[in-house]
Amino acid sequence: MIASYGFACTDANEPLKPWSFERRDLRDDDVRIEITHCGVCHSDIHQARNDWGFAVYPLVPGHEIVGRVTEVGSAVSGFKVGDRVGVGCIVDSCQECAACGEGLEQYCENGMTQTYADTDRRDGSTTYGGYSDQIVVRDKFVLRMPETLDQAAAAPLLCAGITTWSPLRHWKVGKGHKLGVVGLGGLGHMAVKFGVALGAEVTLFTRSPEKEQEARALGATNVVLSTDPKQMEAIAGTLDFVLNTVPNSHDVNPYLAALKRDGAQILVGVITPLDPPVGGANLIMQRKTLAGSLIGGIAETQEMLDFCGEHGITCDIETIKIADINKAFERTMKGDVHYRFVIDMASLAETRQAA
Amino acid sequence: MIASYGFACTDANEPLKPWSFERRDLRDDDVRIEITHCGVCHSDIHQARNDWGFAVYPLVPGHEIVGRVTEVGSAVSGFKVGDRVGVGCIVDSCQECAACGEGLEQYCENGMTQTYADTDRRDGSTTYGGYSDQIVVRDKFVLRMPETLDQAAAAPLLCAGITTWSPLRHWKVGKGHKLGVVGLGGLGHMAVKFGVALGAEVTLFTRSPEKEQEARALGATNVVLSTDPKQMEAIAGTLDFVLNTVPNSHDVNPYLAALKRDGAQILVGVITPLDPPVGGANLIMQRKTLAGSLIGGIAETQEMLDFCGEHGITCDIETIKIADINKAFERTMKGDVHYRFVIDMASLAETRQAA
Ligand SMILES: [Zn+2]
Ligand SMILES: [Zn+2]
Ligand SMILES: [Zn+2]
Ligand SMILES: [Zn+2]
Repeated sequence: MIASYGFACTDANEPLKPWSFERRDLRDDDVRIEITHCGVCHSDIHQARNDWGFAVYPLVPGHEIVGRVTEVGSAVSGFKVGDRVGVGCIVDSCQECAACGEGLEQYCENGMTQTYADTDRRDGSTTYGGYSDQIVVRDKFVLRMPETLDQAAAAPLLCAGITTWSPLRHWKVGKGHKLGVVGLGGLGHMAVKFGVALGAEVTLFTRSPEKEQEARALGATNVVLSTDPKQMEAIAGTLDFVLNTVPNSHDVNPYLAALKRDGAQILVGVITPLDPPVGGANLIMQRKTLAGSLIGGIAETQEMLDFCGEHGITCDIETIKIADINKAFERTMKGDVHYRFVIDMASLAETRQAA
Repeated sequence: MIASYGFACTDANEPLKPWSFERRDLRDDDVRIEITHCGVCHSDIHQARNDWGFAVYPLVPGHEIVGRVTEVGSAVSGFKVGDRVGVGCIVDSCQECAACGEGLEQYCENGMTQTYADTDRRDGSTTYGGYSDQIVVRDKFVLRMPETLDQAAAAPLLCAGITTWSPLRHWKVGKGHKLGVVGLGGLGHMAVKFGVALGAEVTLFTRSPEKEQEARALGATNVVLSTDPKQMEAIAGTLDFVLNTVPNSHDVNPYLAALKRDGAQILVGVITPLDPPVGGANLIMQRKTLAGSLIGGIAETQEMLDFCGEHGITCDIETIKIADINKAFERTMKGDVHYRFVIDMASLAETRQAA
């Protein structure tokens, strides 16, 4: 076993604290990665606090992981020691079902293996995430990071990036399309960047007037204050797509109203029941669609990373030391971050010395 | 003006009663039709009772109209006296917007003109529906009825038929697809017939065990009792499409669960808020779609009628005299009809003699 060290929470009500634990020894197809940076995703907080009811403790969060390869298994040919690599939300899948066959491991019919708080499909051990010094991951689930990108700022591409990229590509959003993005957080700001990079005209919906300037700086052509009925009325019936990144229950009907006939609103954040309820007429009257999309597949994630490398796209981040992770959780829940915290994992050593 | 006679309600709480009224004189592009049959749609009842809040009284319901041409305007070239014709839910639209240009008059950006309780776009008069001896309709909105079909049984094709046909065609349902149909009423039984005719394998969802045999007789391969959790679990993740014809609020989540990844549930009946609410996760986890569809366009309606003529498809109906219309409303609301009442309009004369 490989002695590892990271931050974990031991209970839904406990803060994250330093924790020493073990990773598995490398299998033939495993890659061992020294983690240099890890993004802080809303999911990390939901899982740490067991908001969804399926947390497993001790829980080491983190699924926006970048680092360098330090060791490879005997059957690994795609990576070598020193490579810049990334790991996202998925570390394994059955590789046999139709979804896996199509490169859509996130929809694996036998259930993907998530990066943390999940069960390894070969040895039954619990998976631990990227708030840690290193990780051991099956080679098929390791991504190549473009060397040209700032690695800290690239880390959130592994979840916030792919979660918005995948639906934009699946629904073929591009030139000539008007795209609405709801929410300007970790996911939303990437949806704006990708929408613009793919050629769409982007409208940001926000409840915060102060986000207008930020959104325009990111490339949004139009900013709509969702709390202003007049602005919402003016945008009604004009958009081809809405990518809704808000992570908690809210009224999605106004964004259905913003769509043209045959338009689609795609949810990527909210997994709870949609309250207030969706109006049947809001779908029927102009043949509209409400859909959902989950992260993205491995091949698609590599495609996005390569696209980001070519176009110089990264996330807007605030780098933190891991000692400040609990404060970062608080600030993330309040939306007080532009737009993603990324842990500089070099700071982990300091906590070890302190402990 | 053309003296007309039919059944109308004068208030949300009043039964339908005989009523003499006037239709407009023929414009150049109008067709005058002697009505031989008219189907009884759920919408007729909702409108008569002002359930949706936009009824206009006196209200003459009826938008599943078949009859014979008795007169044509000077500019009408597509129809001649004696032709078997039909009129559905739409009697006019702007003819200038993108939707009209695509033959999707039901989504007219300037608002379609509905067959009854709506406002004529040229003279501002109120439109009156098919529970009547005759109707005057703009030629572009008159359909050709295949002579080979039983005209009474063909009448509900004009609403129940096209409302289910249009989404099946738009979503390209056909060979190799597994289609679920929710509800075995006027719309549902046509969805089953069309699904089978288009080559799909059809599963009917119903709350009524006694409908199993009927559904199989209509061509359904599989019948699932939606109240039985075991049957619902067995069907989970297996369907490509679900066409949901239930006209009132109900839980659509179990039918989302029945879909495969990338599957779509299409609502054609329920225009009220969806209560209990849709679960965001039920859309996100397997990239599923919840959509809506409204009736169908004129060209598409003609396509469906021609298809029905070729394949000998009509609705299963119960013919009534118009004197029994209020009883028929009661029975329709209880689902006590197989599957559509159609008024034999010859019976209108009897009420005139009685009055
Ligand atoms: Zn995440
Ligand atoms: Zn799989
Ligand atoms: Zn109808
Ligand atoms: Zn129009």
